[in-house]
Amino acid sequence: MPRTRRVRQGLVIVNTGDGKGKTSAALGVLFRAWGRGMRVGMFQFIKHASANCGEHQAARKIGVEIMPYGDGFTWLSKDLEATKALAVELWAICKGKLQSGDYDVLIFDEITYPLQYGWIPVEDVLNALRARPPALHVIMTGRNAPPGLVEFADLVTEMREIKHPFQRGIQAQPGIEF
Amino acid sequence: MPRTRRVRQGLVIVNTGDGKGKTSAALGVLFRAWGRGMRVGMFQFIKHASANCGEHQAARKIGVEIMPYGDGFTWLSKDLEATKALAVELWAICKGKLQSGDYDVLIFDEITYPLQYGWIPVEDVLNALRARPPALHVIMTGRNAPPGLVEFADLVTEMREIKHPFQRGIQAQPGIEF
Repeated sequence: MPRTRRVRQGLVIVNTGDGKGKTSAALGVLFRAWGRGMRVGMFQFIKHASANCGEHQAARKIGVEIMPYGDGFTWLSKDLEATKALAVELWAICKGKLQSGDYDVLIFDEITYPLQYGWIPVEDVLNALRARPPALHVIMTGRNAPPGLVEFADLVTEMREIKHPFQRGIQAQPGIEF
Repeated sequence: MPRTRRVRQGLVIVNTGDGKGKTSAALGVLFRAWGRGMRVGMFQFIKHASANCGEHQAARKIGVEIMPYGDGFTWLSKDLEATKALAVELWAICKGKLQSGDYDVLIFDEITYPLQYGWIPVEDVLNALRARPPALHVIMTGRNAPPGLVEFADLVTEMREIKHPFQRGIQAQPGIEF
């Protein structure tokens, strides 16, 4: 399906790379769009469903939907089947959101991990993006964005780590990194 | 002054590079920190003082301080002296904010441009950062962060452009890019 060029066009945005700022930049856009009265929502594939990070507290204060739906998956997780099942469930929810007409900006945070693991087929995501309302912006974050998604996206930024405080033994700071 | 390592430590964070997401990531941290009840403020060196972007509208809604203090400076500006005077004025304000004890997170958006032009001495910024309250986080954004600032910072991320919609003739989208 060819895309038309016009003033209001929904962009597909990917924030990838090994550096910081992928989720933060998506949150910044959520905040900015919310400021303009746009309808925004963020769905998180990795953050534990019980997470109560700064962004969740902020979202509750302003009545914006940020839904963590993972199990805190890390490379050391023992039960990958349970992790996979959650990701597949959340993707079904996200597909519904994409078609709903209820949003101007949707964020699928850390969706690249289930894509990378093959738990969600990239082609299924591209089909859902093609079928979405044409003005809907979609932001996807996470390391190692699959080539098919990068090819499809309108705007792709790589966050590259130049220097990280973990290198100096400084711990993650609340409000800054989570 | 040597820095100590401890659980609550103010970080100096730099978001640089030619790609998107430098200011957005800073806004995301502002949102996250505000969610945790932290005291946040953002001061913008380039955005015109009358700017009413999504972030300004959002900040007003939640009572957070985001102050644009530029003249919309571009490479085509005619009156660089006026632009420089504004940047110098804003840096004086920022120095006061750094020392005030009134903030947990301060953002100096697009400060790299007056640094690059030599309008604000890098050493003056480093001295003000050294003298700040030790728990205060400071985020600075903009292309071409000076080497002295990168050297001093705790966390430096380069936002690298992989693909940009301008390349395809698509205009900047409200709520997403401003």
